[in-house]
Amino acid sequence: MADSVRESGSDFMPRFDANGLLTAIAVDSATKDILMVAFMDEEALVRTRKTGLAHFHSRSRGELWLKGETSGHFLKVEDILVDCDQDALLLVVEPQGPACHTGARSCFYRKLGEEGLIPVGN
Amino acid sequence: MADSVRESGSDFMPRFDANGLLTAIAVDSATKDILMVAFMDEEALVRTRKTGLAHFHSRSRGELWLKGETSGHFLKVEDILVDCDQDALLLVVEPQGPACHTGARSCFYRKLGEEGLIPVGN
Repeated sequence: MADSVRESGSDFMPRFDANGLLTAIAVDSATKDILMVAFMDEEALVRTRKTGLAHFHSRSRGELWLKGETSGHFLKVEDILVDCDQDALLLVVEPQGPACHTGARSCFYRKLGEEGLIPVGN
Repeated sequence: MADSVRESGSDFMPRFDANGLLTAIAVDSATKDILMVAFMDEEALVRTRKTGLAHFHSRSRGELWLKGETSGHFLKVEDILVDCDQDALLLVVEPQGPACHTGARSCFYRKLGEEGLIPVGN
């Protein structure tokens, strides 16, 4: 019952996993390119909705992380889409610079070939 | 050192999490719409590469899952992109039907509004 309400209803009932996290994907509103994937806990979600800037939860540092806090490359959130079982979010964003910490526009700058990874120019 | 090799190198070194999983996002090669998000363990990744059809690991059932096995709505994989730290994959696919088990084309058929979730027609 809870599952069908979650899937078909209009109530936002985010389903955090055992670690209190949702998967969050940032997609460029202009190009539809996927920029990065990270995780959000409840605090990151609340801060994101309140400020309009993407916040995540760093699993390695165990803390709230405002994307762009040090680089200035914030992700301005235009829309948040929710998937069927409400354990993943799609952030439709206007990036204020390269989204990847490597300086690449997107974190997905390589594809898998037969012999290894091949640059794709993202 | 391992991190920089992972980020800049051409070696495929998938970084499975503590549960042995990677995040896998399926995106429609024709429309660039994000269709679904799931998880892959090593077995699912090997099967996907071998067959060209998206396989995932079901966290709830704890087993390998060939997407479309019961519905016929397979995801034909054209490319696999890898992110900077190699813990997320982007499957560029040609869907053979609705990707969502609800019958929606994409699992992301609602967006978050002030008062709850709003259908977006995906």
